[in-house]
Amino acid sequence: MRIVRSIPELRVALKTFRDGGQSIGFVPTMGFLHEGHAALIRQSMARCDTTVVSVFVNPTQFGPGEDLAKYPRDLERDQNLCLKLGVGTLFIPEPAEIYPTGFTTSISVGPMGDLLCGMFRPGHFRGVATVVTKLFNLVQPDLAFFGQKDLQQTSILRRVVKDLNLPVDILVVPTVREADGLALSSRNAYLSPEHRKLALGISRGLFAAERRFQEGERDPGTLAEGVRSALAGMDEIQYCEAVDPLTMDLLAGPITRPAALCVAVVLGGTRLIDNVLLSPTGEAAQFISHLDPPGGNA
Amino acid sequence: MRIVRSIPELRVALKTFRDGGQSIGFVPTMGFLHEGHAALIRQSMARCDTTVVSVFVNPTQFGPGEDLAKYPRDLERDQNLCLKLGVGTLFIPEPAEIYPTGFTTSISVGPMGDLLCGMFRPGHFRGVATVVTKLFNLVQPDLAFFGQKDLQQTSILRRVVKDLNLPVDILVVPTVREADGLALSSRNAYLSPEHRKLALGISRGLFAAERRFQEGERDPGTLAEGVRSALAGMDEIQYCEAVDPLTMDLLAGPITRPAALCVAVVLGGTRLIDNVLLSPTGEAAQFISHLDPPGGNA
Repeated sequence: MRIVRSIPELRVALKTFRDGGQSIGFVPTMGFLHEGHAALIRQSMARCDTTVVSVFVNPTQFGPGEDLAKYPRDLERDQNLCLKLGVGTLFIPEPAEIYPTGFTTSISVGPMGDLLCGMFRPGHFRGVATVVTKLFNLVQPDLAFFGQKDLQQTSILRRVVKDLNLPVDILVVPTVREADGLALSSRNAYLSPEHRKLALGISRGLFAAERRFQEGERDPGTLAEGVRSALAGMDEIQYCEAVDPLTMDLLAGPITRPAALCVAVVLGGTRLIDNVLLSPTGEAAQFISHLDPPGGNA
Repeated sequence: MRIVRSIPELRVALKTFRDGGQSIGFVPTMGFLHEGHAALIRQSMARCDTTVVSVFVNPTQFGPGEDLAKYPRDLERDQNLCLKLGVGTLFIPEPAEIYPTGFTTSISVGPMGDLLCGMFRPGHFRGVATVVTKLFNLVQPDLAFFGQKDLQQTSILRRVVKDLNLPVDILVVPTVREADGLALSSRNAYLSPEHRKLALGISRGLFAAERRFQEGERDPGTLAEGVRSALAGMDEIQYCEAVDPLTMDLLAGPITRPAALCVAVVLGGTRLIDNVLLSPTGEAAQFISHLDPPGGNA
């Protein structure tokens, strides 16, 4: 495994693969890797000739009061995991490598960036869209892998990739969960044992709604209300909504096309998100990677 | 010469060159080609294995009251010129091919986009940055060629390319002029014979300032004032300033580094821009292509 920290090093490292006609898979992360990241890396290993993982805690996607400074880091463990999984190239840039003096450009995805998480984290998705576009341009991967837990992020990136004609395909990998159901997240490390127990309400509420959907409930309001009732112990429910998984628009009428139930809560100062996909045709776990953003050509 | 109108056709046409390891030069235009465009195409032909020209009158870079509807078009003449110059691929997309239903993403270059032309054309450079990034991602050229007449555009695109790590180099080609000095522009076609004569004040004023600079005048205000006095006959002087050619910031003190005198006027309803470069070390015409945007790594 090659570990590179500078952009010129990265370009040199990847040129060999590109010139050799090898396909490149890419897993961008903020580090503190867990089994969710491992699932992305395994998918990439299985589908591409070589896999690039980046570890970069991107300052521009954190707001003023957020957890940038205390975001968990463990580079040594991240390196060992990547090595064990067979990653070809690990890219660990410093912020100044990504945002040198004079940097001013940003990418906005439009209205979708202001919905759900965007309402509570102004500027977050601008930061995400900009840094991921930069990383795509640096790595020039054939495929890039993202976790379904960050559903809005994946939809925004699909939109950006399609709108800017970026030559990369995005694959969304189903959320990996603890045995009891909690979605894996680097931020779970913040939770006290008590909050860790309470957090289970999120996945329990979502799974219960999923069952009601499978049993025939199609009203988005009723399903979201069901989830909401399972979130009683939370400090704050930022949102709990049934949405179109590609546009994040709230669903008005009965669910006849793929939908998503999305939740964001705050628990003991920690912000947690989760979601489940609802597919009227039944293949919820699989359908998302086959969906294209609405409209036009590729 | 291959003429392509759809994105899939373009990707197929260019794959052959890319797979063959050939270098691709790109000249994005809004059509109604003149000798200025021809100079860009010749530069590309001389430096790259194959040249792609796009003709696309980009609606998103025109404001509400601007000349989108009447912007001059002559596709047959454009095709013939490209054929004569040896262009390999001519890309002529319809607006719906570039902006399909659902399109929402945009790129902002930050403060530079609000200076000079940006003050008078709000949103213009957002439109330019977005469409050119799209075209870069579609064509994936090694080199892209732009005319010095649109100096602010070139500086904004260099900034975007650098900030987003787009794998392309931008070359700026000196402005091509009529025998009497008027900078070539598709919009010159709008000028009445009388306004055509008056328009000469722009280049005359700029050339006079250039001479004063060569004779030792280094005060940016004095030089700009000199140009301004040559613009007496115009309906409106939108700006006439000495600026840093890479940031478009107004110059405060004496000129000790490369500078540009930039002018925008309105004449009989037609907006005209022009500029000259001032280089204290003397190689004004050449230096611009060797300049990088301020800051950091590539």
